[in-house]
Amino acid sequence: MKDNAKISSAVIKRLPRYRRYLSDLQKKNVDRISSNELSNLIGYTASQIRQDLNNFGGFGQQGYGYNIQSLYNEISSILGLDKDYKMVIVGTGNLGQAIANYTHYYKSGFMVSAMFDVNPKLIGLRINDIEVLDYERLEEFMQDNSVDIGIVCTNKDSAQEVVDKLCAGGVRGIWNFAPTDLQLPEGVALENVHLSDSLHSLAYYINRNSQMKDQD
Amino acid sequence: MKDNAKISSAVIKRLPRYRRYLSDLQKKNVDRISSNELSNLIGYTASQIRQDLNNFGGFGQQGYGYNIQSLYNEISSILGLDKDYKMVIVGTGNLGQAIANYTHYYKSGFMVSAMFDVNPKLIGLRINDIEVLDYERLEEFMQDNSVDIGIVCTNKDSAQEVVDKLCAGGVRGIWNFAPTDLQLPEGVALENVHLSDSLHSLAYYINRNSQMKDQD
Repeated sequence: MKDNAKISSAVIKRLPRYRRYLSDLQKKNVDRISSNELSNLIGYTASQIRQDLNNFGGFGQQGYGYNIQSLYNEISSILGLDKDYKMVIVGTGNLGQAIANYTHYYKSGFMVSAMFDVNPKLIGLRINDIEVLDYERLEEFMQDNSVDIGIVCTNKDSAQEVVDKLCAGGVRGIWNFAPTDLQLPEGVALENVHLSDSLHSLAYYINRNSQMKDQD
Repeated sequence: MKDNAKISSAVIKRLPRYRRYLSDLQKKNVDRISSNELSNLIGYTASQIRQDLNNFGGFGQQGYGYNIQSLYNEISSILGLDKDYKMVIVGTGNLGQAIANYTHYYKSGFMVSAMFDVNPKLIGLRINDIEVLDYERLEEFMQDNSVDIGIVCTNKDSAQEVVDKLCAGGVRGIWNFAPTDLQLPEGVALENVHLSDSLHSLAYYINRNSQMKDQD
């Protein structure tokens, strides 16, 4: 395996998608697949796929294809999905609860250790057997527990303060749903899910399609 | 303005982010900004910014900077945010409800007309004055109402069937939160929010950071 640090971020973005398709194929008891077949399925070109998968050793054998199980395992390991992650969620409105349920039913190595909110109506609520704690207790919790990932489901204005506390408490990554860009200390990974950005891109493509129809 | 159809998808992906920063600047009553100042704020290089904004006419004047209000308006118009969109949400668990609240509080032109679910416990529930309807009624609703965007918050296995009904009902775009890739008829825009892909990328960067620390 090549040094992971050298795989480009574009390839990394595609790996979870490969993994999803490989998982579906495993469920259908398919053992091997060629880059051409994979291309028909995923929609990347076969040459793109070969290039991507070559980044970490290349499991394809000419005329024989990829072994789905080993490719799946290798991608999982590159992504770090063979490890467990302890997470806390800050902000437990609908979105925070949705994320909690999502990671719960998803049955992966991502486990919610605690949830926090400032709203007295939410504090004390149990979601999948995890109690929502008073946000005041976040720092104390972080001192007493090892937390890998902080999930930010607060509003825009509280997000940076929350992230500062999570980082001071030793998280290794932030999964941010607040519609703002965050400042993080070096060495802490950040993944944003900016819902408004996504909706606005959709609006653009809707209008572009309509314009193209009008030009026909 | 140049033909929108020719702006690359990479630029389109960046426009909502520009718009967010311009909106913040407007709130701080800033009138003009240079590409260098914008670069410090957003984190793209000044040359990237000039190149991006040149795509649609370029509002920057040498030594004078960009007029924030006109740039904001122009980007909004390119993205189609000067128009209104009627949306339906299918799947009204926590995630569907979170999306409904999100677009509601967000007070933009994106309006939820109806929400649907198969779960009798959710049918009849009111979220921001919108009643959750029986999924059985989706086709009828689509016949009687003009809907621009279908939001899919169902599980993976139901998503394609839901999308087929939404497309048959005339939506112009699908905002998909189900962890699967969808087949859409030509001319219908698709924007995916794949939460698991995002979480898996985060796991990768957490581990890469740890590896780099170990190598120090």
